[in-house]
Amino acid sequence: MNTPPNAPNTPDSSHTRIPLAQLEALLAQVFERHGTSAQVAAALAQNCALAQRDGADSHGVFRIPGYLSTLASGWVNGHAVPQVEDVAPGYVAVDAGNGFAQPALDAARSLLLEKARRNGIALLAIRNSHHFAALWLDVEPLAREGLVALAFVNSMACVVPSGGHRALFGTNPIAFAAPRAGGEPLVFDLATSAIAHGDVQIAARAGHTLPEGYGVDRHGQPTCDPAAILDGGALLPFGGYKGSALSMMVELLAAALTGGNFSFDFDWSQHPGAKTPWTGELLIAIDPAKGAGHNFAQRSEALVQAMRGAGQARQPGDRRYAERALADQLGVAVGVQELASLRALAGIV
Amino acid sequence: MNTPPNAPNTPDSSHTRIPLAQLEALLAQVFERHGTSAQVAAALAQNCALAQRDGADSHGVFRIPGYLSTLASGWVNGHAVPQVEDVAPGYVAVDAGNGFAQPALDAARSLLLEKARRNGIALLAIRNSHHFAALWLDVEPLAREGLVALAFVNSMACVVPSGGHRALFGTNPIAFAAPRAGGEPLVFDLATSAIAHGDVQIAARAGHTLPEGYGVDRHGQPTCDPAAILDGGALLPFGGYKGSALSMMVELLAAALTGGNFSFDFDWSQHPGAKTPWTGELLIAIDPAKGAGHNFAQRSEALVQAMRGAGQARQPGDRRYAERALADQLGVAVGVQELASLRALAGIV
Repeated sequence: MNTPPNAPNTPDSSHTRIPLAQLEALLAQVFERHGTSAQVAAALAQNCALAQRDGADSHGVFRIPGYLSTLASGWVNGHAVPQVEDVAPGYVAVDAGNGFAQPALDAARSLLLEKARRNGIALLAIRNSHHFAALWLDVEPLAREGLVALAFVNSMACVVPSGGHRALFGTNPIAFAAPRAGGEPLVFDLATSAIAHGDVQIAARAGHTLPEGYGVDRHGQPTCDPAAILDGGALLPFGGYKGSALSMMVELLAAALTGGNFSFDFDWSQHPGAKTPWTGELLIAIDPAKGAGHNFAQRSEALVQAMRGAGQARQPGDRRYAERALADQLGVAVGVQELASLRALAGIV
Repeated sequence: MNTPPNAPNTPDSSHTRIPLAQLEALLAQVFERHGTSAQVAAALAQNCALAQRDGADSHGVFRIPGYLSTLASGWVNGHAVPQVEDVAPGYVAVDAGNGFAQPALDAARSLLLEKARRNGIALLAIRNSHHFAALWLDVEPLAREGLVALAFVNSMACVVPSGGHRALFGTNPIAFAAPRAGGEPLVFDLATSAIAHGDVQIAARAGHTLPEGYGVDRHGQPTCDPAAILDGGALLPFGGYKGSALSMMVELLAAALTGGNFSFDFDWSQHPGAKTPWTGELLIAIDPAKGAGHNFAQRSEALVQAMRGAGQARQPGDRRYAERALADQLGVAVGVQELASLRALAGIV
């Protein structure tokens, strides 16, 4: 649920580019053919296509096999209809009905926006939901509406709390988005784990050792060996006890507050093939046009200029915006083989 | 604005213990005698006494010389009367009038609570304020009222953004508090810098080197030499680019959103002796009794039990609670010499 800063992807001959709308339609067809309603298919297809467009390989079409596996296992309800509850003037709740978080967010977004604008701040508490996607896609649209947004989602036990010896927290990302006068919104999406699970697998395959502080072995002992982490070990939080405290906060906000499951709370052993954490998500939206923050977008632009002046060449989100600009012009980069698989999954022969 | 986890203090013969109320009265007398109104003195004295009670040496009476120096410099208005603005159903703003943040928070706290309970979520945006204190004291009382609370405060340029070479962000702490059924609230207060400035000074005096990733020298080059950090160098964010992103978020929330100054925005060169950053603060309070989070305190207790089960012996806030229990029984530990200085500053001969 997090992408470390990399150079933009440079698709080689094994990649092709297709229009975003075409990719989205193809993915919707795949989802609908594998156990979702048309509405759920549309929400997931859009989310997945946008992540692919932005160069987030780990959260784009790469996720499709996981989605289909979890749907086939019966672990998640692909036909769930989210129930939106107008709880209080600043509080929207959604019972996602054991479905995905994205259709739940779609169902409640306009009410969240309305409440944030009326009250200055509002929250959206999604429970009984599965989030298998990039988190920045949940906050960036709110910044484009002029709001400042925060999102928290917990996942599945794979991170050892500070001082502990057993996995308990999820990778538990925090995403933030804020409008900006002179450019695209400032957006970040960071896992509170020191490294993503996928990157540990890549290091293991390549035979690389990891820096200290990334993981523990099956006995809870610190290790730099990615294979030991994968063989019954676990990840560590980023930044030591501070990242661990933030990960705990994500459990409290995304699960305890919403009524969703903690990352260690659910048992999917009866659903072989299940891949999606059954948890919750919290979004907070603030209207900076209230009060003294009425010139917020100018202030955030001034901060960006100051960061540049201090030598920070790349702002949070820049890599994704660069990929997006390319994709808008040339189409979304997809692996040739991946595209063939998607077409087969969609029943296109 | 952050205390790394240490063993509880063990006051030696150079320390004495006095009742909290007595320390608070003494500190109020010191503040009032050095340029504050009775109301500001009461707010600062309480804050400082509570930090001392909780064993936060760096934010207790240790701060008094800094407070008095900044008051004497004319940089901050010790008689400021905060102006509370009821901006929207979920939005309270306070113009602190170039005074301290604590009296501003005192003036707006009841309105914030009322709004959070009515709306489910509310925010308090303090601007034109000076925060020289521990941040957990701003959120813990909200958790004792049953709310979940977040606070963000920016400070003064001393942290280099990720990839940069010059200080721009403050130590920019984030504090969080949540109620808990089986014990004291879960509370953390973490600087987004890798280390506190005071700890760099201590390392320099002791001739120790620092771990990698804590600071840069005057040329923006990474260094483990604390003296090089102090000699025109700067701190780094904790956790690399992730801590840097969080520090940026704190600038946006505590300054851009509230209408306060950024950490790099103010010029105190005309006020020799000025010590307090002239910025802003944002508090967010959520009522977990709304919606599906009605059993929040039981859920957070379950999380604590799970963290213990995973081997995390100490929960965020535990060290402070241990110090507090001692102080409640025996009195607040204060250095004998410090106490004598405070008495002299209070005009007690």
